[in-house]
Amino acid sequence: MFNHNKRLQYTVRVDECNPALANLMLEQFGGPQGELAAAMRYFTQALAEEDPGRKDMLLDIATEELSHLEVIGSIVAMLNRGAKGRLAEGIDEQAEAFRALQGAGNDSHVTQVLYGGGPALINSGGQLWNAGYIDSIGEPTADLRSNIAAEARAKIVYERLINVTADPGVRDALTFLMTREISHQKSFEKALYSMDRSFPPGKLPGDPRFADVYVNTSRGEGDTTGPWCEGTGFSEVIVPDENALPVDGGDGHAEVGLSAAEKKAVKAFGTRLASDPSADPITGADLGSQPPPK
Amino acid sequence: MFNHNKRLQYTVRVDECNPALANLMLEQFGGPQGELAAAMRYFTQALAEEDPGRKDMLLDIATEELSHLEVIGSIVAMLNRGAKGRLAEGIDEQAEAFRALQGAGNDSHVTQVLYGGGPALINSGGQLWNAGYIDSIGEPTADLRSNIAAEARAKIVYERLINVTADPGVRDALTFLMTREISHQKSFEKALYSMDRSFPPGKLPGDPRFADVYVNTSRGEGDTTGPWCEGTGFSEVIVPDENALPVDGGDGHAEVGLSAAEKKAVKAFGTRLASDPSADPITGADLGSQPPPK
Amino acid sequence: MFNHNKRLQYTVRVDECNPALANLMLEQFGGPQGELAAAMRYFTQALAEEDPGRKDMLLDIATEELSHLEVIGSIVAMLNRGAKGRLAEGIDEQAEAFRALQGAGNDSHVTQVLYGGGPALINSGGQLWNAGYIDSIGEPTADLRSNIAAEARAKIVYERLINVTADPGVRDALTFLMTREISHQKSFEKALYSMDRSFPPGKLPGDPRFADVYVNTSRGEGDTTGPWCEGTGFSEVIVPDENALPVDGGDGHAEVGLSAAEKKAVKAFGTRLASDPSADPITGADLGSQPPPK
Amino acid sequence: MFNHNKRLQYTVRVDECNPALANLMLEQFGGPQGELAAAMRYFTQALAEEDPGRKDMLLDIATEELSHLEVIGSIVAMLNRGAKGRLAEGIDEQAEAFRALQGAGNDSHVTQVLYGGGPALINSGGQLWNAGYIDSIGEPTADLRSNIAAEARAKIVYERLINVTADPGVRDALTFLMTREISHQKSFEKALYSMDRSFPPGKLPGDPRFADVYVNTSRGEGDTTGPWCEGTGFSEVIVPDENALPVDGGDGHAEVGLSAAEKKAVKAFGTRLASDPSADPITGADLGSQPPPK
Amino acid sequence: MFNHNKRLQYTVRVDECNPALANLMLEQFGGPQGELAAAMRYFTQALAEEDPGRKDMLLDIATEELSHLEVIGSIVAMLNRGAKGRLAEGIDEQAEAFRALQGAGNDSHVTQVLYGGGPALINSGGQLWNAGYIDSIGEPTADLRSNIAAEARAKIVYERLINVTADPGVRDALTFLMTREISHQKSFEKALYSMDRSFPPGKLPGDPRFADVYVNTSRGEGDTTGPWCEGTGFSEVIVPDENALPVDGGDGHAEVGLSAAEKKAVKAFGTRLASDPSADPITGADLGSQPPPK
Amino acid sequence: MFNHNKRLQYTVRVDECNPALANLMLEQFGGPQGELAAAMRYFTQALAEEDPGRKDMLLDIATEELSHLEVIGSIVAMLNRGAKGRLAEGIDEQAEAFRALQGAGNDSHVTQVLYGGGPALINSGGQLWNAGYIDSIGEPTADLRSNIAAEARAKIVYERLINVTADPGVRDALTFLMTREISHQKSFEKALYSMDRSFPPGKLPGDPRFADVYVNTSRGEGDTTGPWCEGTGFSEVIVPDENALPVDGGDGHAEVGLSAAEKKAVKAFGTRLASDPSADPITGADLGSQPPPK
Repeated sequence: MFNHNKRLQYTVRVDECNPALANLMLEQFGGPQGELAAAMRYFTQALAEEDPGRKDMLLDIATEELSHLEVIGSIVAMLNRGAKGRLAEGIDEQAEAFRALQGAGNDSHVTQVLYGGGPALINSGGQLWNAGYIDSIGEPTADLRSNIAAEARAKIVYERLINVTADPGVRDALTFLMTREISHQKSFEKALYSMDRSFPPGKLPGDPRFADVYVNTSRGEGDTTGPWCEGTGFSEVIVPDENALPVDGGDGHAEVGLSAAEKKAVKAFGTRLASDPSADPITGADLGSQPPPK
Repeated sequence: MFNHNKRLQYTVRVDECNPALANLMLEQFGGPQGELAAAMRYFTQALAEEDPGRKDMLLDIATEELSHLEVIGSIVAMLNRGAKGRLAEGIDEQAEAFRALQGAGNDSHVTQVLYGGGPALINSGGQLWNAGYIDSIGEPTADLRSNIAAEARAKIVYERLINVTADPGVRDALTFLMTREISHQKSFEKALYSMDRSFPPGKLPGDPRFADVYVNTSRGEGDTTGPWCEGTGFSEVIVPDENALPVDGGDGHAEVGLSAAEKKAVKAFGTRLASDPSADPITGADLGSQPPPK
Repeated sequence: MFNHNKRLQYTVRVDECNPALANLMLEQFGGPQGELAAAMRYFTQALAEEDPGRKDMLLDIATEELSHLEVIGSIVAMLNRGAKGRLAEGIDEQAEAFRALQGAGNDSHVTQVLYGGGPALINSGGQLWNAGYIDSIGEPTADLRSNIAAEARAKIVYERLINVTADPGVRDALTFLMTREISHQKSFEKALYSMDRSFPPGKLPGDPRFADVYVNTSRGEGDTTGPWCEGTGFSEVIVPDENALPVDGGDGHAEVGLSAAEKKAVKAFGTRLASDPSADPITGADLGSQPPPK
Repeated sequence: MFNHNKRLQYTVRVDECNPALANLMLEQFGGPQGELAAAMRYFTQALAEEDPGRKDMLLDIATEELSHLEVIGSIVAMLNRGAKGRLAEGIDEQAEAFRALQGAGNDSHVTQVLYGGGPALINSGGQLWNAGYIDSIGEPTADLRSNIAAEARAKIVYERLINVTADPGVRDALTFLMTREISHQKSFEKALYSMDRSFPPGKLPGDPRFADVYVNTSRGEGDTTGPWCEGTGFSEVIVPDENALPVDGGDGHAEVGLSAAEKKAVKAFGTRLASDPSADPITGADLGSQPPPK
Repeated sequence: MFNHNKRLQYTVRVDECNPALANLMLEQFGGPQGELAAAMRYFTQALAEEDPGRKDMLLDIATEELSHLEVIGSIVAMLNRGAKGRLAEGIDEQAEAFRALQGAGNDSHVTQVLYGGGPALINSGGQLWNAGYIDSIGEPTADLRSNIAAEARAKIVYERLINVTADPGVRDALTFLMTREISHQKSFEKALYSMDRSFPPGKLPGDPRFADVYVNTSRGEGDTTGPWCEGTGFSEVIVPDENALPVDGGDGHAEVGLSAAEKKAVKAFGTRLASDPSADPITGADLGSQPPPK
Repeated sequence: MFNHNKRLQYTVRVDECNPALANLMLEQFGGPQGELAAAMRYFTQALAEEDPGRKDMLLDIATEELSHLEVIGSIVAMLNRGAKGRLAEGIDEQAEAFRALQGAGNDSHVTQVLYGGGPALINSGGQLWNAGYIDSIGEPTADLRSNIAAEARAKIVYERLINVTADPGVRDALTFLMTREISHQKSFEKALYSMDRSFPPGKLPGDPRFADVYVNTSRGEGDTTGPWCEGTGFSEVIVPDENALPVDGGDGHAEVGLSAAEKKAVKAFGTRLASDPSADPITGADLGSQPPPK
């Protein structure tokens, strides 16, 4: 059973009202990578979990995510607090109120007019939260991997929100929330590799004729190799024949003109995230193919 | 650009029509873990990928998933073929046709009446496919983890379908499809760990005050520890105080009477998937915290 | 503005309660080809229509579809009336009530438990109606074609429902509703071809280099030709080279065993709907490429 | 912030596994009148509430609804526990497993195959939970009425579930949950009428010309009167006929001021797409009513 | 059956085209509190209603809501009329057209590009209308409360739209529509209390051990009492023990800096809607617990 | 089976990054008239098609639409490429990054923050793609009409996008894509009229009493005639008035045969919930119109 204490898990101090920023924050309140999705992902898993250790962990983290939902929702409520009052009380002349609503930016008009400035279970674009965001399937070898991925995604969305938030109190709370996703990912990683063989997931083995095959279905300029098709565990590469030309007679490439700053940013992005085609790394699948070390 | 060959990637031989089985198969045609979700997950990532190796891999696998969508959709079409003809041509007397429709089982009435027996982009319960199933966010350190998890989930759903399918030709094709998910998971694992540090995902570091903390928010009987809260990388466990009783005066446990066979099955399930609380395993996060070995 | 008369547009006499049949009928109440979708498709078009004749037609037909929504909804209410009373008043012992609910078939349990036996805006599989079913885009040359197609689809779903309905009163009302869809399709056809050139739709002409080209992207056994690629108006057929084998070494066909009756039904279906590859028919595009005859 | 105790708020003792009953229970787990919708309705209101008393009440009840979500979810998990184990471990021969899955009834196949028997945020028909179920709008005079109505609906759905549940332990827990909805409704009623004038809701008064008018738009046999049209507060009953007038006394047209450029564009749009009412064109229906010309 | 008269129920005179305002208006066309949701809520209830008086009332009001749907949809069409013509006819140079589309504000680009400026069944943020907005469950003691709440919410959204609309003709029509919601709420209130005991809703009584209990699950600073937990009808308050601190060492409050005007508006909002913790009001539950006075 | 070549079907050259334009382009990537909807519409039809010619055509066009999905997705990726890099790498000071995000226009903030600038399967307003956009029903006489209409709608949306796009490379690619829709419409027209009688769609004939009737339900100023109500094929125009009769000549009631037990249950249901038309009860609106009693 749940209890609640009116103190937040993390103190929220917002400099000034900003409905457009409030709306961006909804991404982690009612968005696909947000806190409700996280809490419900772990909570639904916990209810059917047979392993007492994982069940406890899932309940711990689900409960914490509910507290995070409260933190991010409180940020939204604070950022909208002034605008909410003005609109509800009809303080401003209509044309001015309309300009304020439009000028706030993005979809904050929805949050104001439809939800009265309260936090709503929508993402920053107004899309209603739906349970299709939750991918629990009741098999721990899959669910733990889903949780690891979900924490990674949530971390990234918080990082992006931090990158566009100037308000120091909001940045501070967002940094806390982002950090907790890192910690949760670590816990789920530990739990995954604490199982005796988590790979392949489930119980049925694969058909050995097809388990090590990489099917090269995309051909043409840009065809590359790497550990994902030629590394350990891949015994055969099937290459379908294919040969086609763009109908316009051009080279079929996609290009865009970039400013110098954009070029630099794109290059940094590419460099930071470059894969090493000559590596043949040990992977989570390797770890999951054997019992955990003591 | 795409090309198509009318041969399937895997030959489909169905023993006899079976609309109820057809409907179960929709789970992997238009369900959340199905082939359209897989194809679109990798395809959307590929379009914005900067790394040429990963881009090629994503296109290879996305294209193969489209071929799998065709295989599973062809299974659905074959299993419904007879029922489709009878209903469209009004072969049967109405009361008999109604009984056939109801007797087929599960939601196959929807597939017959609304979609005429063709494969529809719904899951086996009639839920329309929606893009909320796709969790691409354009950051490879997160997206590759999402892909690993998605392949693990898809493998499990195929395994469950195999466990309830008696038709040998369908089982054969499902085994092929299941096996390919294993292979794809391996490729994504290789790609993830080929990057120079994939953990923490993204660029911003976490706040060191909170990154190693485990918050023990769920208390009471059943509280356990394990590597996810006390293993390497966890320096502190915060334990909120909490003390509550069920309002009915009972012990607050959830229980169910199980038959002997059920007990055995549940025990086997629990044993197979038990976590080892004394382990302190190396994890994907550990792997991702350092450059890949050559 | 709307007015309402408590008489239905068509009298509904139901022989006996049948919750499973009730549920099938929901397909045309809250399903994608159902009467709400029809009414709202035409109503939304009418509100922005500039042509007074089409506006009147759209309002006439939208209003009639609302009356059809009432007819089909009344059928649902009648078929559920007995079950509704028994469940609401708790007449039956629980185990018996559970059996009755399950035994009714398909998803009628949802209609009983969640909606109390009233007609709900869901399809026969419980999928909530959504406005994505409506494809009005505010351009008459496209919208009229959408309306023609929608009437054709609705006609077919009514035909399928008639084929599985033994109750003569319900069949009678369904036949009325099905017939009106034929009539509406005729009206929309007349309206489409009363415009001065409805093809190509919209105002911008196509690029002549690509408007007459047929791109043959699917190759292999089964490749055919017909008026859709070689008829009047197609000056060039582009054929990408492609040559691939199934990975299993089979022939890549999809097959199913059919009973004699099924074979006959499938053959009838195929024959009735066979296309004539040697035809070069005049089409709606041809009609729409010139002014209407007086 | 939230805390959790592993004891449930109400003890759950289930006699035996029953996947079909499990599925019915999902109605109150992931259905529109279920506990997640309740918890999130009150929680989102609480975050933006200015009145400290109501804020506390909303948090109290939101938290209790989360505990109810846990109770109903635990019932689902227990009822599915045996079936989950058998399917995951592949205990049964496939044809038998298929029969068990189909024989369980309603949509329990989805819960087994897709969710592995765990509680999923879907209703009993497989419809994904979505935030459109939540009607919080941030204005207490409306939100409290929404809460009163929501508790009344939830009470009814529990009553219907009790009426079809023979398992005494499940009935007992359902009775507890149903009773709490009664209690919550009472609290929201008290809170509503503790405000200084909650009617009309909001701040703007209505236009006195129209606030007491009842518009009798549905006529014919069955036309009745009652306090809702003739009681205190209703001063006038308007009865439109076929020549009805707008209630404002105007001409009932919709008009807009257009700039010269806009007038020209609208005129061009209208002219380009005008229908010719004197035409009697050949249509696609005519073409389709005969065999294609060779 | 329905009939239609081409005059609107209320005359609409729009000063000038304004696509951004048009888009806001969609909130009451295709939004959750809008006129389609209202019409369909009452219409679906009417079809299964056994009481002739309520059935007539539900049909009267459902029909009037359809007329309101037409009024608000006509406002949208008028506000978009100029932009629609310009875009369809390609009047403007592209860069100018792009600026006009973006400059219009909020999501009006969707309405222009996708729907051609016609009224679409989406809310002001582009979210498709779905039947999850409708909460009819076929039990009058619940449905009438749902209707009362729905009218209260719709009244508030109209009030907010009025507060941001400068166009006098649009304001005038919105005021009419808002007023009718007040009138409808009164009718539903009369109908609810005309029943012989509407509380508790349904037929099954609650368990007396839990019906009068208030569970105080949210503790800490801010804990209050009021009639909702200590008033008439509440005999016991259960208080779980709980004691937690924010992890950051702060006080766990949520705060925001407010401008003087914002402070004043928030204070006015709070004061207007303050609850009186010392009151013990008679409530709708009390009214519903006894037969109606004659 | 599908193959892929890394060259696009049409070369994409984008002048400069423009996230707001990128977002508009999503309309044809993940919108209802976009390329995924097109590809899946034809692909699902092809899998169940019995006619070899149409099957080939459907596969050809489905495959080409996938190549179009790649072209439009590549345009989105190129237009977002610079912004993606800047945000991911945290290049800009936060306040500046926030301004850039807001200033980009429309919903591009969602695409940046949630999807990292990659092409997402949403429309330009952030609405998730869902399979309700696909209207395949497995009957060629209906499906071909649906395809014709879908191509017409897609052509129009491309035309509108062209009208607001100044970038010449993007305009060029859009013109190619628009043109192909014209060509596809022609193919589907040819296929429709190559069948031996495609009207009325399906197999069952209509009831001759109602097939030629036009029902004039919308009256008053603006009532017109045209070929859609008086042309060839329309023999009668029914004009209902306020005392309208059902078209079948019956009494317009809905009735159902009830068993004795059902009659009793329905009567009990009606009696329990009867409203008292002679009451004039005090209501919640009355309570809410005054301050609470102490």
